[in-house]
Amino acid sequence: MSRVALIGAGPGDPELLTRKAWRIIAEADVILYDALMDAPGMFELAPGAQWVAVGKRANQASIPQALICRMLVNYARQGLKVVRLKGGDPAVFGRLAEELEACRAAGIEVDIVPGVTAACAAAAQLQTSLTLRGVSRSLAFVTPRVNPHDDPDDSEWLPVSLAAQTVAIYMGGGQAALIAQRLLAAGKPPSTPVCAVENASLQGMQCAMTLGQLAQTGLPALGGPVLLLMGEAFAPVLRASGVSVLASDAAETTAGLPAMALLA
Amino acid sequence: MSRVALIGAGPGDPELLTRKAWRIIAEADVILYDALMDAPGMFELAPGAQWVAVGKRANQASIPQALICRMLVNYARQGLKVVRLKGGDPAVFGRLAEELEACRAAGIEVDIVPGVTAACAAAAQLQTSLTLRGVSRSLAFVTPRVNPHDDPDDSEWLPVSLAAQTVAIYMGGGQAALIAQRLLAAGKPPSTPVCAVENASLQGMQCAMTLGQLAQTGLPALGGPVLLLMGEAFAPVLRASGVSVLASDAAETTAGLPAMALLA
Repeated sequence: MSRVALIGAGPGDPELLTRKAWRIIAEADVILYDALMDAPGMFELAPGAQWVAVGKRANQASIPQALICRMLVNYARQGLKVVRLKGGDPAVFGRLAEELEACRAAGIEVDIVPGVTAACAAAAQLQTSLTLRGVSRSLAFVTPRVNPHDDPDDSEWLPVSLAAQTVAIYMGGGQAALIAQRLLAAGKPPSTPVCAVENASLQGMQCAMTLGQLAQTGLPALGGPVLLLMGEAFAPVLRASGVSVLASDAAETTAGLPAMALLA
Repeated sequence: MSRVALIGAGPGDPELLTRKAWRIIAEADVILYDALMDAPGMFELAPGAQWVAVGKRANQASIPQALICRMLVNYARQGLKVVRLKGGDPAVFGRLAEELEACRAAGIEVDIVPGVTAACAAAAQLQTSLTLRGVSRSLAFVTPRVNPHDDPDDSEWLPVSLAAQTVAIYMGGGQAALIAQRLLAAGKPPSTPVCAVENASLQGMQCAMTLGQLAQTGLPALGGPVLLLMGEAFAPVLRASGVSVLASDAAETTAGLPAMALLA
């Protein structure tokens, strides 16, 4: 029976793969992997396997999803042990459904291995919790698409971002200022703490600021994927880094504290 | 320098520990672990270490959080390699902050290792995605506390549960019917698909039903922790299991389909 394993690789650090992922990868014949997963050490997990890059990287030509699905099916039909290695957890913004459906339609059995999602890795790196007793008991993950022109946004991310006490914004680095402006316009307080983490679990920039500050200055141009974490649960990170947590939307700081701090 | 590692063990299956967790546990002298983590194979990760159960199990006497914090600090001050092993991911409803603060206040360095959270493991087990292109682009994690009497609920979970397209309700098994009733009263459609997963990643019950059905019948009494997954992203699971996805709040089924299906 042909089988395909759809595996969450976690945020990037190969040590954050699960033991189960590790075992299945080590036995694989062919591994279709996303971009952004070429961290040192990843390929050594299966030096004899064929590693095929199929991932989508922002602003670069990418392999269409339908072709990835066909490749999975074709490799499996050749009797090969096939792994589809996806960043983070495959069920969280991972386009799992398309590949699952393609395999099922072809009569191929599928195993799914969950992984560590980027928000959890970023919180570990910042040494903070995403939820906090008495402060944040709800956590939302969103992927905003904001339209810089007057056309309406794909704005279903906005109500949940207002309602949740902690919000993790995936793939929001490129539009960070615009996202912050939309949140402010919808009523999120400008003093809301924000942490930005590039390349969670790997080398990358981390910084802390208020939402008001982010709306004004955005983020520096970054090469890696950026996760934005937002909510009062991160106030201790801002305080520890010396950021003024009272910064208004006029970006005025208090007591000479900076409006933004680089953490790493 | 004294150090403590706060480690997310994942949902229960020891194979879903990360390699990093595995490595640090294998080198530990003492491991303070939650209840519900005594899956076969867990203790074999460090047969020579002292394993100390500190976890909270519903309806049983538990060790107060302050005592757990003191134990962490005391073991670390003895120069022991201390691991605090927490279910799931430590930053998601894991009371990470209390233990982190206690260590910091005592001048003890802390490493945090993220883990696979239960919602991701449950989705993998159900062979479904939590997000779905065109259907669900927002995902919320909540832990409702519902008051069965007339006192107001701790209801901050409700607005985010209405706003998010996919909702993962942690620790909601005991109050499942009441939670569903609150959601219906707040306007969530009774046809909303719900999957319940007991003991994600381990042996346990899985079932699929509509929110209207859950409000009427609740869940069978279960021994393990239950995760409720809710949203249109799970409609394919209901259809595949033969559950009527049109069941109204009167629990009427269509074309003779059952209102609830046991998946495992």
